[in-house]
This record gives sequence, structure tokens and C-alpha cells, in this order.
Amino acid sequence: MNPTITAFALSPDEGQGQARDMRVRWAFEEVDQPYDVRLVSFAEMKDPAHLALHPFGQIPTYEEDDLALFESGAIVFHIAERHPGLLPTDADARARAVGWMFAALNTIEPTILEAEAAEYLEGDKPWYVQRVPLIEARIRTRLGELSARLGDAEWLDGNFSAADLLMVTVLRRLEGSEILREHANLTAYVERATRRPAYQRAFATQLAVFEAASRAV
Amino acid sequence: MNPTITAFALSPDEGQGQARDMRVRWAFEEVDQPYDVRLVSFAEMKDPAHLALHPFGQIPTYEEDDLALFESGAIVFHIAERHPGLLPTDADARARAVGWMFAALNTIEPTILEAEAAEYLEGDKPWYVQRVPLIEARIRTRLGELSARLGDAEWLDGNFSAADLLMVTVLRRLEGSEILREHANLTAYVERATRRPAYQRAFATQLAVFEAASRAV
Repeated sequence: MNPTITAFALSPDEGQGQARDMRVRWAFEEVDQPYDVRLVSFAEMKDPAHLALHPFGQIPTYEEDDLALFESGAIVFHIAERHPGLLPTDADARARAVGWMFAALNTIEPTILEAEAAEYLEGDKPWYVQRVPLIEARIRTRLGELSARLGDAEWLDGNFSAADLLMVTVLRRLEGSEILREHANLTAYVERATRRPAYQRAFATQLAVFEAASRAV
Repeated sequence: MNPTITAFALSPDEGQGQARDMRVRWAFEEVDQPYDVRLVSFAEMKDPAHLALHPFGQIPTYEEDDLALFESGAIVFHIAERHPGLLPTDADARARAVGWMFAALNTIEPTILEAEAAEYLEGDKPWYVQRVPLIEARIRTRLGELSARLGDAEWLDGNFSAADLLMVTVLRRLEGSEILREHANLTAYVERATRRPAYQRAFATQLAVFEAASRAV
């Protein structure tokens, strides 16, 4: 039995790989493991059956035998722990990679998501245009620090790892924005990661879900 | 040689245990491991020597032999992996606990920190009072979901774990606020955790740092 993950039946990003199932799909592709996908509608995400899997009513979830997980970071970590290819074998290097996984999701992502939340929740408020530069300044601080640390390295710490996978999905939320383009090394880092065959396969698979769903509508 | 962590020389929370070294101190106390603390000023946190340890110029960091880590969640995980008491031994239960660690830091904490960031960065703006209810609504949604999942359980999933440790430090940021008091089970959960002797020892140790520093000023 393959593990089963959940993903949006009709992704609000129109298959651009911004939904968090992309992280999990990419991880499965990197370690060359098959998986099944169960699509859920927005209404189904708030059903008791889905809330039993995911208390915050989101995707993705992960089910395998008696184990059910939520939180994309934790699911990627679980895959990385069970299959070689996404975490170093050296104990210290592995601990540092886990550190960067938390950094991607707890230090970088919240500032970027705040820009999306502001647009979504406050885009029609009179103060929105004045808040945008404040939000962008917080993102710029973090990206400046990240860029300084990455320098001309290929990946965050040694070989490509689950930390790069998560960090790139976080930075991709800024794709096309001036803020990311201000750092040539971060732009190149995202491009390097998204050229990986595993990324390309995961992206194509989730895009195909959206395209099939939009044809059916 | 004990591991060495960094903490604020003069904590902005005046020793109320809101700084992120508290999480790491608490973890050490739960697993009964000694540790050393190096105090850093705000200026020192932006020095190249500290940035080499922590690219985002924050505390805590963790150093032991050749290993240097940052991100409080990752440091707590590292301690929990190396010493019994903070993660289940059963593989599935352990994966779920890791899931809750990510949930505390990636799903719950960002909404709560946004309230603090708004006060700090926008408290003097004309729109601030109108934003507060929007920010609080986001926190309320997450706490409602968390409260529903916790129900009348003692801890998030089975025995006390590193996930509860992180979640409680996140919820403590709301201590004294009406938002947390709306959920009797979450209030009781925080009280249950903070009554643990290990928490009490960690809290007293970090408070003593602040008290000594403020006497010296």
C-alpha cells in the first residue's frame, strides 16, 4: 500500500505548485517513492472526517497504515527519515539540515505569508497600500540575511536536502516579485532547485490535477 | 563539556520566559542535562561572530563540540532526539509528536507573533486599532481548532512531549489575554505544563539572569 496524501481538488493557485502538497510530492519524487493522492474540496476540508486527520482543516495530510500526519514540514521530514536522499547521514550535518527546515518554516515563511494574508484580508482596507512597504521591509531583512549566509554555495549546507526543498517552496511564493530578484544568489538557488527532475515531475503531476479539474468544471 | 546556548544579556521580556532560550532551557531540564549559557547583548547579536552561529542574528544558538545549531525548534528536537523523555519511542507516535512540533511553530505561532509585530511596528499608525480585531480573529480561529482537538486530553498526543513544550511556549505569548481564557482546556493545558518542575527550574534560571543584569545596570 502506498502512502496517501491529500491535495486540493481545485487548487486556488491554479496548479502553480504553491499549495503545500507540492512539498510532499517533491519529497516523494526525490526519494523515488510512489504515493497516492486523494483530492478534497474546500467544503470537505472542514468535514469531521478531514478534521480528524488535520485539526486545522488544511492540506496536505499523510496516511500510511495506522499512521496519520499533518503539517507539510513534518510530512517531508517523515519521508526524509525513512528514505535516503533528503537528509545527510552524518549526525551533525543532519541536525543542521533539520535546523534549516525549521528556519524555512518558522523564520522565513511567516514574513512572506504575511504579505499574502494582508492582500487577502486587508486588500480592500484604506491602510493596505501603506502597510505593504512595512511588510516588504520585514521580508527584505530576512532575505538579506539568508542571501548573506548562502553566499555562492549551491545549497544551504552541503548537499541538497529536505531543508533546501522546504526553503525553495517558501521562496517560490515570491516568484516574479522584485524582492526575490534583489538577490541574484537566491534567484539562482530557486532556479537550481526547480530544475531538478524530481521537482519537475512533482510540478507536472500537481498541474495535471488542476488542468483536469478545470476541464471538468 | 556541556553544550552552550546563547540567551539575551538583558531580556526584553524582563525575565518572563518569553524569549526563545526558555524553550531550550526547559528541554534540558526535562531530560535532566546540564548546559552552559553565554549571554549576548543586542549589539553582539549582529556581530559577525554571532551571525556565523545564527544567520538571522537571534538567540538561542546551541554549540557542542563541532556542532552549531540555531532555531529553537531544531535545538529542542536535537535535545529530544539525544536524550529520553521528550519524544515517544514508538515510531508512529514519534512522527505525530514531530508533526505537532511543526504545527506549534508553523501554524499557531505565526498568527500570535503577528499580534506582537503589529503592536511593535504599527502601534503608532492610525489603522492599528482597526487591525487588532482582524489579527485576533486569525488567532481565535487557530485556538478554536486547537481547543477542539485537545478536548479533555492532558497533552496533545499521549504523554507530554517536545510538542507540548513548544506549543505551551507559543500559547504563553497570550498569557493574560482574553483570547486564551476563552478556552478553558487550553488555559488548563498551559497551567498543567508550567507546573512541571522542569519548567519551574528553567523559568527560575532565566529570571535570575534578568534580575542580576537589571541590578547591575
